[in-house]
Amino acid sequence: MNKILKLQDYTMTLGSDLLSKITENIPQDLHSHQFVVMTDERVNELYGEEILNALRNQHFKAELLTFPGGEAYKNRDTKAQLESALLKKGYGRDTCLIALGGGVVGDLVGFVAATYLRGIPYIQVPTTLLAMIDSSVGGKTAINTPEGKNLIGAFWNPRAVIADLNCLMTLPQTQKINGWFEALKIFLILDSDSFNEAIKSTEPNLSLIARAVELKAQIVSKDPHETGLRAVLNFGHTLGHALEKISDYELLHGYAVAYGILIESQISLQRGLINPEEYQLIQRSFESLGLETQQLSAYTPESLFQAIRNDKKSKQQQTRMVLLSGLGAVHTLQDQYTHVVSDHEISQAIHTLNTGADDAR
Amino acid sequence: MNKILKLQDYTMTLGSDLLSKITENIPQDLHSHQFVVMTDERVNELYGEEILNALRNQHFKAELLTFPGGEAYKNRDTKAQLESALLKKGYGRDTCLIALGGGVVGDLVGFVAATYLRGIPYIQVPTTLLAMIDSSVGGKTAINTPEGKNLIGAFWNPRAVIADLNCLMTLPQTQKINGWFEALKIFLILDSDSFNEAIKSTEPNLSLIARAVELKAQIVSKDPHETGLRAVLNFGHTLGHALEKISDYELLHGYAVAYGILIESQISLQRGLINPEEYQLIQRSFESLGLETQQLSAYTPESLFQAIRNDKKSKQQQTRMVLLSGLGAVHTLQDQYTHVVSDHEISQAIHTLNTGADDAR
Repeated sequence: MNKILKLQDYTMTLGSDLLSKITENIPQDLHSHQFVVMTDERVNELYGEEILNALRNQHFKAELLTFPGGEAYKNRDTKAQLESALLKKGYGRDTCLIALGGGVVGDLVGFVAATYLRGIPYIQVPTTLLAMIDSSVGGKTAINTPEGKNLIGAFWNPRAVIADLNCLMTLPQTQKINGWFEALKIFLILDSDSFNEAIKSTEPNLSLIARAVELKAQIVSKDPHETGLRAVLNFGHTLGHALEKISDYELLHGYAVAYGILIESQISLQRGLINPEEYQLIQRSFESLGLETQQLSAYTPESLFQAIRNDKKSKQQQTRMVLLSGLGAVHTLQDQYTHVVSDHEISQAIHTLNTGADDAR
Repeated sequence: MNKILKLQDYTMTLGSDLLSKITENIPQDLHSHQFVVMTDERVNELYGEEILNALRNQHFKAELLTFPGGEAYKNRDTKAQLESALLKKGYGRDTCLIALGGGVVGDLVGFVAATYLRGIPYIQVPTTLLAMIDSSVGGKTAINTPEGKNLIGAFWNPRAVIADLNCLMTLPQTQKINGWFEALKIFLILDSDSFNEAIKSTEPNLSLIARAVELKAQIVSKDPHETGLRAVLNFGHTLGHALEKISDYELLHGYAVAYGILIESQISLQRGLINPEEYQLIQRSFESLGLETQQLSAYTPESLFQAIRNDKKSKQQQTRMVLLSGLGAVHTLQDQYTHVVSDHEISQAIHTLNTGADDAR
């Protein structure tokens, strides 16, 4: 059975065998548009032809454009090349892009759609768990620049998100866990029941994925342009982004965020906001997914501090982060969702994680 | 006296001596922001220091970034350089850009604001008549690409528009007329009284400029993303854009649109939608502003047709344009604001203009 979620002003369909019937979930007013499927070379080999045939068999005008995969190509040059390809072929505003792939493809193609002829419609077809849970929801599009990730972009909602869980079958285990960490993050800040259910399940399943998406969508709809509440979704991300950066993006996003969650949870514990049992449940469930906390010792606290301070979205020079006040609840103080944390607290949390000292508490 | 216009969700202030008191017209919630004035080198010499001092004297944090002027620099490279300069200095979302200059500056800086950290506020300070009337209203931002003008961009409203009519004093006469043609266009499609008043006045004045802005803003507010009604503002632009392009942008925008208006009015006359007296009033008033209709013979109809067909925003391969049904009124048919026009009709209209044959009708 498919699950249909209403998100802001578009619909996300989660289910099986959706790619071959993609036209069923394309909004009616787009049916007379011209479709351009944009995907990276690897995803193209897996699903490019299937999508293209599904569109053409239903008499949709469609063609396919590919580009090299990976964060390194989510940049201004690739964007310009895709735009140029569209312009040279005379695509007008009656064009709908289909972003077929993981988060990189979604962010990049979404941003192309956001600025092509000042904005055309696009449809997200996420093929990774991380993209289904994270980047397909919330309308964030972006590219990377030499100064950092996702610093240039736009809020531009897709007209539909079509998430075929069959795609997860071709996904390596690390990629599944990569996405699963984002789901666990959402449950940790918003819903302890789902967290407890999720850490018992061995595989991501439809109902838990849908639950994560719904929870995220509720937050996004209350604060679409990230001026307040939406900050809670950045739990684990202050440290996570810094770790991604100093690992030169070797560390997958979900894993980096998972480390960030552990450190930020450890700080929540240090401040007495959560209790040792709650903290240990988080750490053990993450370790059971293969997260190796001792890997953190590869990064010096100093390199982390520098990477945190270079995160250009930070409003002040102080380091701020989301803290837990329990499983499924974030700590708020005077309407603030983020809290100033000292370098010393961060060092101490990392030290505790590295030495496993928390077990002694 | 200043004139305060409420446009969509921001305010446009038109008046004198506004630059030195700029902070008075900056919305209160932006006062604690950091300001970056972005302007081209020529405008910087005229007003850069004045604006910067006005901000700093009121204890606003402010600095200034300049770039080379002209359409040739309204491109991806200049956008990337401005973004990089902001990122390197650590500007966050608590930053407000000030676009100080003509249409090129407004379009480019507005587009930088639209995508910097997924969108930050900006203020338009137009220094040309064309920018005051045309590009400051409607939220259109864009850059040029090798494939054409304004094909990549975003709809992104400024938080305020501050138009100091004193700037017009340093403006060459051709630049004034360049903007005045856009005002006349607005009056021609929407308000015959203002048109008649405008063609009698020797200089652009506050009340007529404000009237043009108000009329444009009314259209924009009904159709912010240009899906229908807003097309009427493209009167004269089907031919105007084509003329700009084949002149390699030697022809100023307003003048190109003025030629376009004459051709599209001539076609309206050929179709019996307006009468010869109405047409002649338009042509004579444009000629009295220095428009030389015989210059049109420099361009072959074939080169025009090709340039029209390359305008990538055209929905179909047919040539469509706005036609008049009288002074101050556009022709609509079955809820369509644009109409298919044949190459033959365009050739005939240009021939008539070149030979002055309309006087014989």
